[in-house]
Amino acid sequence: MNPKPSTSRRRWLGFAASLSAGLTACKSSKPAADAGPSLLGKPIRPYGERSPFETAARTLADDRFPETSNSYTPLQDSYGILTPSSLHYERHHSGVPSLDPARHQLLIHGLVDRPLIFSLDDLKRLPSQSRIYFIECSGNSNGEWSQKSGLNAARSHGLASCSEWTGVPLSLLLAEAGIRKPAQWLIAEGADACKMQRSLPLEKAMKDTLVAWGQNGEPLRPEQGYPLRLVVPGWEGNISVKWLRRLKATEQPYMSRDETSKYTDLMTDGTARIFTFTMEAKSVITFPSGGQKLNGPGPYQITGLAWSGRGRIERVEVSTDGGTTWRAATLQEPRLPIAFTRFHLPWDWNGSAAALQSRALDETGYLQPTHEALIAARGANSLYHYNGIKTWQVWRNGTVTNA
Amino acid sequence: MNPKPSTSRRRWLGFAASLSAGLTACKSSKPAADAGPSLLGKPIRPYGERSPFETAARTLADDRFPETSNSYTPLQDSYGILTPSSLHYERHHSGVPSLDPARHQLLIHGLVDRPLIFSLDDLKRLPSQSRIYFIECSGNSNGEWSQKSGLNAARSHGLASCSEWTGVPLSLLLAEAGIRKPAQWLIAEGADACKMQRSLPLEKAMKDTLVAWGQNGEPLRPEQGYPLRLVVPGWEGNISVKWLRRLKATEQPYMSRDETSKYTDLMTDGTARIFTFTMEAKSVITFPSGGQKLNGPGPYQITGLAWSGRGRIERVEVSTDGGTTWRAATLQEPRLPIAFTRFHLPWDWNGSAAALQSRALDETGYLQPTHEALIAARGANSLYHYNGIKTWQVWRNGTVTNA
Repeated sequence: MNPKPSTSRRRWLGFAASLSAGLTACKSSKPAADAGPSLLGKPIRPYGERSPFETAARTLADDRFPETSNSYTPLQDSYGILTPSSLHYERHHSGVPSLDPARHQLLIHGLVDRPLIFSLDDLKRLPSQSRIYFIECSGNSNGEWSQKSGLNAARSHGLASCSEWTGVPLSLLLAEAGIRKPAQWLIAEGADACKMQRSLPLEKAMKDTLVAWGQNGEPLRPEQGYPLRLVVPGWEGNISVKWLRRLKATEQPYMSRDETSKYTDLMTDGTARIFTFTMEAKSVITFPSGGQKLNGPGPYQITGLAWSGRGRIERVEVSTDGGTTWRAATLQEPRLPIAFTRFHLPWDWNGSAAALQSRALDETGYLQPTHEALIAARGANSLYHYNGIKTWQVWRNGTVTNA
Repeated sequence: MNPKPSTSRRRWLGFAASLSAGLTACKSSKPAADAGPSLLGKPIRPYGERSPFETAARTLADDRFPETSNSYTPLQDSYGILTPSSLHYERHHSGVPSLDPARHQLLIHGLVDRPLIFSLDDLKRLPSQSRIYFIECSGNSNGEWSQKSGLNAARSHGLASCSEWTGVPLSLLLAEAGIRKPAQWLIAEGADACKMQRSLPLEKAMKDTLVAWGQNGEPLRPEQGYPLRLVVPGWEGNISVKWLRRLKATEQPYMSRDETSKYTDLMTDGTARIFTFTMEAKSVITFPSGGQKLNGPGPYQITGLAWSGRGRIERVEVSTDGGTTWRAATLQEPRLPIAFTRFHLPWDWNGSAAALQSRALDETGYLQPTHEALIAARGANSLYHYNGIKTWQVWRNGTVTNA
């Protein structure tokens, strides 16, 4: 799955050859070794922490109501395709509950043959699986509708993160409960104070939805639904209900607050798009991006992230002239369906102003639209489901800003 | 890459049908909802932590000299294929140094055309890549040579962990420095107090070795080499030199302490195997494993991890009768080369004593040997490179112990 090293090396060697001019620190041959005394370091310990020199943090959206707010993943500081759990974005509707896993239960009821209650121990005994999936809030990039937000990649695209999720297929639990014929929906409810509710079509519940307790090799973090959440692959984030305590099989959706007055898209004719679940193909350049600074002309590696709720990313193209010309970026393997895909493109910056853009194509043939095309299709009243092409403006002094 | 949900579901449904007898908590239809008052939860915050209910920890090997010791990843508590960075195993030779990334440098010298010094900023500007690789200490499972250790999966196999590593291909830096013809080795040196040194064949350095600064989407953790380490895929852990500060191109290996008196295998004739770099195919059942307890007869999911320094895991077989009969386990996708591969097998425990074993076959056709076969080939004097089949004994009362 990894590209053959020999092939990759050939391309990078060419890039490296052009790079030596830019590496001002590589001229001396003095050893770096003589940097003070060598003291015995710190001992082994049961649970590690990051270096005190590292300070990447989630950006908090609103200090007035921090329990009903959100925080953004610092995508501009990200490496690879995984988001560290400590930096996974947050979106809460009544804060993060403290739930005792020994007491937490999941109820499955409604139009079922056998109403069931599962403890965590019950669920963990069942056949589990792990999948690397992104989760994206449908409100991600909402400032981009007006292009008045997005000072950096966190603020513009940081309500999206990617983790390895572990849990039991929901289909298994539903088979055990026995869904009765007229049921077409599940009402999923969280154990947070607002009892967050979303209606999930039974077809998606049976297809690939997980009831998850694991994230990146350990139990879910409290902010991501500890001890139990839905993971509904590729769909808008808040349907992956956190702190999951109840699933009720019904004939109709519940028309809850967070699928009627919120998380819908107001069209120009006054109607609203509703139940627009799938997060469509999207991408963002994370370097160079808003708030970063280039250290003079020379070779750089443009890098970023692309994702699609419909499956694999097939191609990412990058423009440095605001969309006039495009070049195909290298996609890092493995390209997993419904996961972040990292892309790279070498760029020799000549010192002129440049407008950087990326556009993603997914395996269904869907191409990420321009801002203008998205506005033409949906109008400018929406708050949700923005996936237009993002522009970062590089100025002659090397600063990078929101365009 | 993921198995088609429809196929997987069929198999799991069959398993679920046989499972209902085991789910004693699933009989009631009372809602789990009425569990006390619903208070506003905790606010968003810049950097998350795990739930206080979760206590999984690395096991510390030796309290007398905690700076020259090791800690074990709690594999028995692991999910999926990734190790949380806070639980990645440790092996230090003089403790964990505190290195300022703004001052740390990498020197490349010796038989090169252009000695070079790279700052972290220099390195991060170069084309990077991310790869999910396991790293295993060659001393992992050393108690298994005598079968007197291994009370749980941490103690028997927990000097192995798996992360997404991000860095620049070493081949790119070496091309920049210009390796001179007679050079066949690189001497890699760490910035810890002992100046840990290992000799790396130039061929491997050029093939797929990374100079890494990223781990699981954020900077390396201090215990894993912050701010810079080698990642030498599939080779014994201590050649992936941590806190990397120097690479010297030479004609001969350095014959350092940690490749002569240590990390070699003493054979029965008094000679020693040396430079036995590749970690061969290996596996361990993580559930049920030593120290865990089965809650009575009934259906369970056996699960574990397999890996090979030679590439992908092709097959894992599980025995519940001490190796007399074997069944193929399901391998979780994606199966990445030189990464942990998670395996699963449904098991209906009838309540009799059982001896659980797993054996891994990698894509080169190499099959993990029995303990006896390994002893026959290598004798019993070795401390390193143990990859024999591991047995867990399940007793009639459900307790699981080292066999």
